Order: sequence, then C-alpha cells, then structure tokens
Amino acid sequence: MSDQLMAAVGAGVEVVDLGRQLRVGMPQSPNHPQFWHTLPRRHGDMTRVDGASAANDLITMGTHVGTHIDALAHVSQDGVLHGGQDAAQAGVGGKYVELGVHTIEPMIRRGVLLDVAGARGTVQLEGGYEVTVADLEDTERRQGTPVGSGDVVLIRTGWGRLFEEGLAYTGAESGVPGVSEDGARWLAERSVHAAGADTIAFERLAPRGGHSLLPAHRVLLVEHGIYIIEALDLEELADRRVHEFTFVLVPLNIFGATGSPVRPLAVSSA
Amino acid sequence: MSDQLMAAVGAGVEVVDLGRQLRVGMPQSPNHPQFWHTLPRRHGDMTRVDGASAANDLITMGTHVGTHIDALAHVSQDGVLHGGQDAAQAGVGGKYVELGVHTIEPMIRRGVLLDVAGARGTVQLEGGYEVTVADLEDTERRQGTPVGSGDVVLIRTGWGRLFEEGLAYTGAESGVPGVSEDGARWLAERSVHAAGADTIAFERLAPRGGHSLLPAHRVLLVEHGIYIIEALDLEELADRRVHEFTFVLVPLNIFGATGSPVRPLAVSSA
Amino acid sequence: MSDQLMAAVGAGVEVVDLGRQLRVGMPQSPNHPQFWHTLPRRHGDMTRVDGASAANDLITMGTHVGTHIDALAHVSQDGVLHGGQDAAQAGVGGKYVELGVHTIEPMIRRGVLLDVAGARGTVQLEGGYEVTVADLEDTERRQGTPVGSGDVVLIRTGWGRLFEEGLAYTGAESGVPGVSEDGARWLAERSVHAAGADTIAFERLAPRGGHSLLPAHRVLLVEHGIYIIEALDLEELADRRVHEFTFVLVPLNIFGATGSPVRPLAVSSA
Amino acid sequence: MSDQLMAAVGAGVEVVDLGRQLRVGMPQSPNHPQFWHTLPRRHGDMTRVDGASAANDLITMGTHVGTHIDALAHVSQDGVLHGGQDAAQAGVGGKYVELGVHTIEPMIRRGVLLDVAGARGTVQLEGGYEVTVADLEDTERRQGTPVGSGDVVLIRTGWGRLFEEGLAYTGAESGVPGVSEDGARWLAERSVHAAGADTIAFERLAPRGGHSLLPAHRVLLVEHGIYIIEALDLEELADRRVHEFTFVLVPLNIFGATGSPVRPLAVSSA
Repeated sequence: MSDQLMAAVGAGVEVVDLGRQLRVGMPQSPNHPQFWHTLPRRHGDMTRVDGASAANDLITMGTHVGTHIDALAHVSQDGVLHGGQDAAQAGVGGKYVELGVHTIEPMIRRGVLLDVAGARGTVQLEGGYEVTVADLEDTERRQGTPVGSGDVVLIRTGWGRLFEEGLAYTGAESGVPGVSEDGARWLAERSVHAAGADTIAFERLAPRGGHSLLPAHRVLLVEHGIYIIEALDLEELADRRVHEFTFVLVPLNIFGATGSPVRPLAVSSA
Repeated sequence: MSDQLMAAVGAGVEVVDLGRQLRVGMPQSPNHPQFWHTLPRRHGDMTRVDGASAANDLITMGTHVGTHIDALAHVSQDGVLHGGQDAAQAGVGGKYVELGVHTIEPMIRRGVLLDVAGARGTVQLEGGYEVTVADLEDTERRQGTPVGSGDVVLIRTGWGRLFEEGLAYTGAESGVPGVSEDGARWLAERSVHAAGADTIAFERLAPRGGHSLLPAHRVLLVEHGIYIIEALDLEELADRRVHEFTFVLVPLNIFGATGSPVRPLAVSSA
Repeated sequence: MSDQLMAAVGAGVEVVDLGRQLRVGMPQSPNHPQFWHTLPRRHGDMTRVDGASAANDLITMGTHVGTHIDALAHVSQDGVLHGGQDAAQAGVGGKYVELGVHTIEPMIRRGVLLDVAGARGTVQLEGGYEVTVADLEDTERRQGTPVGSGDVVLIRTGWGRLFEEGLAYTGAESGVPGVSEDGARWLAERSVHAAGADTIAFERLAPRGGHSLLPAHRVLLVEHGIYIIEALDLEELADRRVHEFTFVLVPLNIFGATGSPVRPLAVSSA
Repeated sequence: MSDQLMAAVGAGVEVVDLGRQLRVGMPQSPNHPQFWHTLPRRHGDMTRVDGASAANDLITMGTHVGTHIDALAHVSQDGVLHGGQDAAQAGVGGKYVELGVHTIEPMIRRGVLLDVAGARGTVQLEGGYEVTVADLEDTERRQGTPVGSGDVVLIRTGWGRLFEEGLAYTGAESGVPGVSEDGARWLAERSVHAAGADTIAFERLAPRGGHSLLPAHRVLLVEHGIYIIEALDLEELADRRVHEFTFVLVPLNIFGATGSPVRPLAVSSA
C-alpha cells in the first residue's frame, strides 16, 4: 500500500507528550470542579468463579482540569457566543449543541512552539510578565519557524516548571506570564487554528489580579473562533529544541460540554 | 524542514473517527458508574464587569464508558496481574501504579480492520456468534491485509449498529458476537499491540449469559499484556472499505486508573 | 429541668426508620444521576507515623434518589413555580434561592400513616391502581386517625415490598399504584404539611405510561406548596399498626437544590 | 391518644439548627472530595406536553463535608478498628459492612452544650488552644449541666464563627482549638454516646501542625466506639444559653460509608 502517511509512520516517529498527568491534588482553577479518581472495585473485592477479577474507576471532574482545551461555547461577550448566537439561549437544555467541545475536530496539523522564555534567555518568565507582539515575532525569527495559517501555536513561558509545586502554579499572588489582548490579536491575524500555553489560564494575569479580565479569551474564542489549550507541558519540547512538529490533539467527544481534558502530542519523524 | 511525517500530513490526511459520542443515557455496562455531564455554570448565570462570562462543566463517570481502552490493571486471574504482580497488593493506595492506564503509551501505528461481518456477507453477526480463528483468517485473506506484529487489530461484527438503540447494544438477552479464547490466542500469536471491537465487552457473550466468563480478557490482558478497546464505531471505516490505516489513540493520562474513555482515529493520506 | 420534650424522650422512645438504605444498584428513576459510593482511601492505603489511618468516601448522586423529599423548586407548571415566580428565571445562577431544599424546615410534627393497602385487605395494591378519595377517607375512618392541618400524611400502597427486587419497583411495565389529581386535592384541602408514599413517584402511574403526566406533583408542589416524600419504607410501621406518630424529617441543607435524600423517622413513646 | 412524646410535640417545640449549609466553596478538609452541586436540568430546559417541567440535581462530595458524623469505620489504629476487627480486611469489597455509617442509629437523646469559650469569658478560643479537663469540668459546673452516660456532648470553642471566612476556619496556619487526648478520655469516662465540636477536625490542632496526630479520634472512635460530629454551628445555641436539650441526628443510611453529612438539631419545648 502506498499511503504516504503510513510510510512515514512505518519509518518511525518520536512522540513528545504535552499533557499533564491527571492526579488527585494537582493544581487547578478553583472555578472548576476538582479532578478526583477512585477505585470502587479493586482486585480482591470480588472474584469470579473462574478466578478472574476486574477492578474499575470512578472519576469526577470539571472539564477545564489538567491540560485541557476550551470549546467556543466556553466564553461569551456581551451575551453572545462566537458567531453571534445568544449565549443564554444556547445553553437551554444543559448542552451547547452548536459550539460544544464535540464540534472540535481532532487535530493532526502543523504545530509551532514559540519558546518565548528560551528566546529571551531565561528559564521562566516572571509572574505578571506580558508576552508582547515583539516577543512573539522575535521568537519566531530566532527559531526560524514562521507561524502559518491553520497552525497550532504553543507559547512557552517556562511557568510550567511550577506545575509540580501546586499552588504556586496558579499564581494568585505572583501573577502569571502570558499574552494579553495584543498578543491574542497577533495570533488571530496569523489565522492560527488553536493557541496554547504552559499556564493555567493562557492569559497574562496581574499579581493578585485574579481572573477578572480575560481579554485573550475574548479575542480568540469569541471574536475569532480560535481554540485555546491550557496547562500544557512544554518543557521536553523546549529541551529538545523541537520548534516545529506534527501536532495531534483529540478532545473527548462530550456532547455539549465547554471543554475537555486532552493529552496533546508533538510528533516527528525519528 | 524535511520531516517525512510533516510532509505526509501537509499533503493532506483523512480522518475517520472511531469513537462514540459521550452522552448522558448512552448504553454502558451497569458494572461501571454512569457517564453524566452537566453545566454548573451557564452563560447568563454570572457576567463579569467587562461583559464576559464563562460556562463550565461537571462530569462523573466510570472509565469504561463510551469507547474506551482497558489498562492491564483492569483484570486479574488467580490473584495476579500481567507480569505476575499480586493483584490485591497492586491496588493498595487506591492506584495501580505499575499497570494503570497512565502506562499506556499514545499509539500511532498500523491499524487493521478485520471486517468479519463484511467478509461473511452480512451487515451484522447475530448475538452469541463466536468469531472463530477461521473467520479471522478468512477475513484477513479476503481483505488482503495480513495482521503483523505491533499492529492494532479492530474486529467488526456489525453489532455497533445497535449502539443508538441503547439496551439492545448491551445484549443481555440476545448475547453479543465476538471472539472467544481461540480468537484471542490467535491475536496474541500475531503479537498485536492492541485489539478492539465494536461491542461493549469485546468478548463473545452467550445469550442470557452475562459477563460471567471473559476468556479473551484473560488471554489478552493478563497472559499477553495486549490492550483491549471496546465500543468502537467501525461503521464508517467498513463503509469506506478502509482496512489498513494509521491508528491514533491517546488515552487520558489518569494516574493509576484501570481504563480511559478514548476517541481513536483511523487516519489515511488523502 | 422541666422541659416536657426532654421528659418524654427521657421516658423512652421507639423509632421506626422510614428511609431506604442508600446502596449502589438500588432502584431509582433513570431521570436522575445514579447513586454511587466508593472509598478513595481504605485502611491499609496509608498509615500515619503513629499507627493511625483514616478511610474516606466519594459519593455522586442525584438528590431524588433513595427515600427523598421534593423541594417546591422541583416542579413548575406553565412556566411558574409555587407562588408565581418565573421558573426559568428562578434557576439563573444554578441555584433555586427562594424555593430550594434549603428552605424546607426540619419537621417534627404529627404524622399519620394511611395504610390503604391494609384497609383494603391486601398486602399490595396492583400496578396502575388509583387510590381514590373514598379509599383515603375509608382508611382514615377504619384507623380512627383523622388527618389534621399541618400533619404529614404517608400513604401506604404496599408497593414498597418490591423495592428489593429492583426494576419491578419502578413499574415501567406494570404501572404503580398511587393517588392522582383527586387524591392530591383531598390532601391539599386538609392542609397537610407534606405527603409521602412508598412508591418511586408518589403518583399513580398507568401501566407502560411512564412519567408523562404527574398531576399530584402539580397540585401539591405548585398549587399548594406541599412537600412530597418518595420511596418511603412503610412496611414496619404497617406491621406494627402504628398509624399516628411523631414524624421527624431533616433534609440536607443543600443550598439551591430541588430535593434531598432523607431518612424520615416515626417516633413514639415506648 | 396518650403518647407522651406526641403531647410534648403538640404543645410546641423550638428547633435550633446545628448544621452548616452545604454550599459549593464552603471550607472543608482537602483530604476529602469537594462538595459540588449543580443542576443538570433547569426549568425551561424541557417542558412536558401538559406544561409541567421538573428540575433536578447532581451532587458529588466526600462524606466528611459540611457538618458531618464519623462512623467507627473512619479511623483505625495499629491496623485494627474499634472492637478489634482487622481494618484492611474490613474494607475488602469497598464497604465497611460492620462499622459503616449505616450502623449508626438515629439519635434522639439528651444533648449537652459545653460552651467552653463562654465559660472562659471569650467569644472564641485561640488557634492551638487545648481544651483541658479542667475547662470541661469548669464549664459543666458553671452551666449546671452535668454530663451523663449516653448523652451527646457538644463542645463550643467559638471557632465556628470563622466558618463563613473560608480558609481561616481550617486553621492550617493558626492551629485550631479543641480537646486533646485527655479531654477525649474524660468524655469516654463519662460514657457519652457521641461528641461534637464547632471545628473541622474536633481535635486541638497545633499551629502549622496539620492533621498529623489525631489522638481524640483514636480515643473516641477506636478505643471507645464514641461517634464524633464535626463542623457544628453552635453559635445560636450559645447565644440563647440553651445548654441542655433534646439532640436529634439522623445520618444518611449509606451502606458501608465512613461518615455522612448531617444536620443535627437541638430541640426544646417552647
């Protein structure tokens, strides 16, 4: 068979996992129901006559937990969703039928890492730092990876290094680095398909500023229909200096939900 | 950049979605906590000062719901898991640290559809029908798609056509078609990486026989460390006569769980 | 201390438990999220340095599970709740602030069992049987327990005997005995505080009729502000021929919810 | 009818609610799954042909949330539960069959408030303060309410005033006032039926000491089979100077669980 994709896969690929492990107690936004996992049935609880047993799980969680993607239904501005649909009306029935996460097609497309921290010669941008358009363009140029239409762009601030520390990652006191309205507009002008970051809210958050203003969400989700991916693990990708790759992301197909935990991959020929 | 994979992806790919949509009320095994989705916050509930609002979700579910993958920790035989670990001991702490679903690497590898129903000239095998080794080999030969080591093999019985009907899909009365011990051994001899089916339990279930004996689970999970994927949607793939493809499956990285809902893809060059 | 209540309690009381045990797999309406209980932490999972360990639980459930009480917010008619509040508007914010279950005061008041099955000389009324006003008045007279204003009235149909059988209790095929609109009006005319039954929906349900029409809910909850208690266990009370008692019911104080699982008690001086 | 209890109730009772309202975001121990409530169906989502609609709920929670009671199965010491049962073995099957919360009988018995803060002339004992045996005996004497066998004793520290403040209530930094091993022994010597407090863990917690040592739990639950009630609201009772009352507590009858949210009442003749 002469399938070009199968030939490429058959020749060998390397996969970098960009998703955080889902664990009880991991840092997450208090606005969303906590991730919790437990085993209702463990081996030893009940054994079949033939000596077999099956263990199983119960999960409760919000969908904006761990590494996750925001559907267009997640955010409204002035009462309307992307495309102009009345936001309150869209939720009647308890499902977002038109813009829920089930409408996000699985992604297999070019991905670009913009390692802003790396380009600025630091391991981690400080809390509250605004990633400017100049930062984005400078990073793009240094890396030699121009952002194209339809790409998925992942912005590395280095803040993901704090994920294992828990509360520090959410940055309530310190603020969190990220793009603001200008950076979001720049991404939209490049017609990216989705944009992600290694922070909990994608946005630049001011120290002690909370999540009161989220301009990048408005620009990307509401104004331009561009998906947002949050809490990515971009450390290995940066360490390997892989700035361009095949990006694979498959959201759970949850009918009507505003988001989904995801485990995106950066894949390259070996 | 000369990445062969990126070139193949850049040339265009077609994706067939093999996962079922996660919906409240979909058919699932009563052994596992029901999938449930609700919106704690809808647009209109609370609007920020700048006119923005965010809606969110709460999910509760087992992990063996919808289309899902079984981790090796899911089944034990005679008190031991795959590799000989004591099964009861492995669950102490409420996590399967060594064989949980977090240990399943994302899959990007050759997939083969064995459309047994198609090869037998029927739209759907009857409840309780055992897919024999002869069926598997005959299908392989007719399709011209020999199963190789490391492949993911998906067995189509046509039973997936009943998914939308709900209870009928679980087949408590009718039984369900599938491989039994012999078919599972055949798959293991071919050293497949994972095996899936369009049924709720992968196994052949006898009419009114329940899930009392699950020999294919024992052979695949416990004896050979081969993952099982259940409740696949194989209809479009069969309709398109795509019997060989790049199979993509990315389980949620849930630390210590026995399985994960998944949305596998069959991808081909366009 | 001369407290009359303490003197009565000090002299000894007998308690009959009118609540069903909350168990995974118990019969419940498919309209509501299943009750599920699991132990995230068991003894042996983690022991403190001083040799102590603590086990704990995770519960997921609807509130209309097991024996439960309906708050006035549960049902609307023609877009309005009891008292005329706009029903859709009342739920904005995801809480029923004015008529949620948190507004039900704990009940310690006269309870009357109307053992209709007993009065009709049968152990169990048949599925679909309508408990008429004549039945209610005949039972009241035979028992010598007139219903008074402010009482809690519990109607025994004998259907509760099927609770342990599971599906049969929900009566999808058979229908379920109960009062209909006339019986509900009779209860409202007596100005009862709450009304309960030993069935899953309080109402008379026609065989294969489903829950499409629920006139007693409309009359009691919406028109008269009378709480409804469902899935009571009235067997022991009937066996003991206790038709009049102190009724104790304490709903969970869940802010904004439409109901609560409860464990009502019938208490008498010993 | 000459029932003494009904006569007392008929003469009028006053009820003081000792339970906290269950709200999303209320303070609770991070060791237990968060309380979360949401409305899957709101009025306006779906209306029946006759103009009726029903709203409903989904709850996920640990059982040690809000005001709650600890079953004897909650804590083990040196591998054994109260009565000497092997603690790990007791949990096999995912339920504590012998000492789960379903084995706690509903309580209608004498309750005594020991308002230690009041007796010490303060509105609130400081964080880390140990309530000594002298404190308990002094309070008992000043109030004129000797603790008797079978009573439920509620210890007021005044710390409950912080409940609405959230994090401060958990006292991670400040510590929390409470009895320690000596106070627990004193309660056990009086053969109380249950003991409660207006704090999250009942125990005296040292500043920044966490929950590493819980001697009162060991003494009460494991050694003496005395139930513990936590996070009580004792403010109104203290304000009214009601130190002796009929205590009513009805745990949810959750088969095999280690605890239950409860809404205890202090009831007195009017």
